[in-house]
Amino acid sequence: MGDLRDESLQLHREHQGKLEVRSKVKVANKEDLSLAYSPGVAAPCLEIAQDGTKIYEYTMKGNTVAVVTNGTAVLGLGNIGSAASLPVMEGKAVLFKEFAGVDAFPITLKTTDTDEIVRTVKLLDAGFGGINLEDIAAPACFVIEERLKEELDIPVFHDDQHGTAIVTLAGLLNAMQLTGRTKEGTKVVVNGAGAAGIAIVKLLHASGFTDIVMCDTKGAIFEGRLYGMNSYKEEIGSFTNRDRTEGLLKDVIRGADVFIGVSAEGALTQDMVRSMAPDSIIFAMANPNPEILPHLAKEAGAKVIGTGRSDFPNQVNNVLAFPGIFRGALDVRATEINETMKIAAVEAIAGLLAIEELHADYVIPAPFDRRVAPAVAAAVAETARKSGVTALLATDEH
Amino acid sequence: MGDLRDESLQLHREHQGKLEVRSKVKVANKEDLSLAYSPGVAAPCLEIAQDGTKIYEYTMKGNTVAVVTNGTAVLGLGNIGSAASLPVMEGKAVLFKEFAGVDAFPITLKTTDTDEIVRTVKLLDAGFGGINLEDIAAPACFVIEERLKEELDIPVFHDDQHGTAIVTLAGLLNAMQLTGRTKEGTKVVVNGAGAAGIAIVKLLHASGFTDIVMCDTKGAIFEGRLYGMNSYKEEIGSFTNRDRTEGLLKDVIRGADVFIGVSAEGALTQDMVRSMAPDSIIFAMANPNPEILPHLAKEAGAKVIGTGRSDFPNQVNNVLAFPGIFRGALDVRATEINETMKIAAVEAIAGLLAIEELHADYVIPAPFDRRVAPAVAAAVAETARKSGVTALLATDEH
Repeated sequence: MGDLRDESLQLHREHQGKLEVRSKVKVANKEDLSLAYSPGVAAPCLEIAQDGTKIYEYTMKGNTVAVVTNGTAVLGLGNIGSAASLPVMEGKAVLFKEFAGVDAFPITLKTTDTDEIVRTVKLLDAGFGGINLEDIAAPACFVIEERLKEELDIPVFHDDQHGTAIVTLAGLLNAMQLTGRTKEGTKVVVNGAGAAGIAIVKLLHASGFTDIVMCDTKGAIFEGRLYGMNSYKEEIGSFTNRDRTEGLLKDVIRGADVFIGVSAEGALTQDMVRSMAPDSIIFAMANPNPEILPHLAKEAGAKVIGTGRSDFPNQVNNVLAFPGIFRGALDVRATEINETMKIAAVEAIAGLLAIEELHADYVIPAPFDRRVAPAVAAAVAETARKSGVTALLATDEH
Repeated sequence: MGDLRDESLQLHREHQGKLEVRSKVKVANKEDLSLAYSPGVAAPCLEIAQDGTKIYEYTMKGNTVAVVTNGTAVLGLGNIGSAASLPVMEGKAVLFKEFAGVDAFPITLKTTDTDEIVRTVKLLDAGFGGINLEDIAAPACFVIEERLKEELDIPVFHDDQHGTAIVTLAGLLNAMQLTGRTKEGTKVVVNGAGAAGIAIVKLLHASGFTDIVMCDTKGAIFEGRLYGMNSYKEEIGSFTNRDRTEGLLKDVIRGADVFIGVSAEGALTQDMVRSMAPDSIIFAMANPNPEILPHLAKEAGAKVIGTGRSDFPNQVNNVLAFPGIFRGALDVRATEINETMKIAAVEAIAGLLAIEELHADYVIPAPFDRRVAPAVAAAVAETARKSGVTALLATDEH
């Protein structure tokens, strides 16, 4: 870990960060200058002034995403502030370009005021074709995403919520195929009611799972629970845990088919795994150390184990989702990224692994599987088109 | 002009704008990913969280400039709005990179509220090493620049004001050398009291000119004038036109050595030029058509004529100034761009042309003279260091 630290510092120092802004056009002489800048540049300006949609034709907007943060929930580091978050945002932008050719740029905002973040993003949205919210703490992240989705006509996507949910669900679908399960008969327990947990439960519900229980530190969430609730948990309670089962994780995990943890190291014990259904499926995504270590989970009877770590099998890595999702959304000029588009992304990621190649240690494609982003992009674009949320006619596509 | 328009639209359409965001680091495998992104990226984040100045060492900040506009005074097009201004801002960023290796990114703000612009720029300043204000109408541009200079610790520079002033003054110094004039004995009339005009007068004053008269549409500005004044003109009146001469341009231009126009086509007549001192110097920078055409000015007795146009000699082109100025400021991590740094840029631009190569049609280097930006950068950096406005020790430089 000391080596990794030193190497990373060295890499960042050597290049003075990771991003650069470059010209796509040649400016080598007066003629080039007169086309790319004054006086020729007046022509696209006037076209856009007359017809606002032309901004997609003549500018970078249609391929550009803002990576917006206020640095309040950065990696596992917590609230380190907007300035200290910049290396992560640059890294995110690097991945956008590397995996999907999307031009992404960090916008780090020095504020924890929800209204101010919403207003600021709205002020600068002209230059961007999409907004990727990143590393903003709950519950502000929910409010900000919800309001921006309502008030902007470009896609808004909080990756910490939905990226994680999409990749987890993709892995889960493959693990269920491997263990002969269907959505209808499968009981899922999600532990940890933060941003990612809430998004996972909503996506499970939207994709047809009917038996879901969410736990927070106080135990199972159910409709009408009188302690430790907020509006997001109320909503979760309205469609999960229909029996209103009370109890801690160790109680509600009995007989469950699936455990999904976005909680803390050690939250899942071997005894709990033993109480689950045979051949259980576990996604233990606490960072940096999972809720249970894979070999201990297997020893206690689990069949498939995924984590957030690259040194264990089945890594849940958001890079499988966000580049292709934005690529697809930008390609058809989608006005939003809705639940059906997210589910299309899930199915594209899961579907890349053929049934015959699935095994307990391979239910999620590798982060560098280059087939993933194009497959996700195509599925997301197609679904956006079908659900009528594109501002582009099929014949305009490029 | 039709051809230029079509070619420019074609160029912008073909590339979907002009800018892209690229990675400076390789991300080809898991190891690369673990250094540039999670988990290795935590190291630079923590370093910055502990010591804010490390952001210059580990991120793009130190080489990155925001090109900030609200689209209220774009080229000669006027108030076309933030979205329609994007092609110009992209073009500006292209020039920053092409001429000085500076990574610049457009920030177009959909507001005309001065406070909101100031607040927004302050919110997002962590990611930028400098702020280039662009195409913001007067008087808002003065207020915004003034407040940002006070409230930010990175350089803030409104190019429409200072870029124009710097290049004009550089051309003027060479023209004076050619016509045997010194600052002390030279009478300068500046016509047009907008953003560029005000900046030109201030820079003339700061660099030692003592006989300056500024005119607006109501004629000469003087201390105590009771009509058509504002706080900027009051300030101008406090150090120019010390005789409090009244009258229109045609009156005050008599006997003047230099005319500098940032006004309108036709503002300077041949009769006015005939009334000036022999071998007069004229910078007629109205766009797209100058205050007087060069051949008419020569015919009436002017010796040196500069304009804003690339198809006439002595083009006053801001690209001679802003790339090198920001390069120099960033190189020494200057906290501001002050008057002495601007004057250093003037002298660097003027000084590139040797006395023996000066002639009436060559008092300003050509826009593509590649010696300009490095010379300006070196002079600006050196002057910043001398005036103590750098946050970097000489030994830290790179």
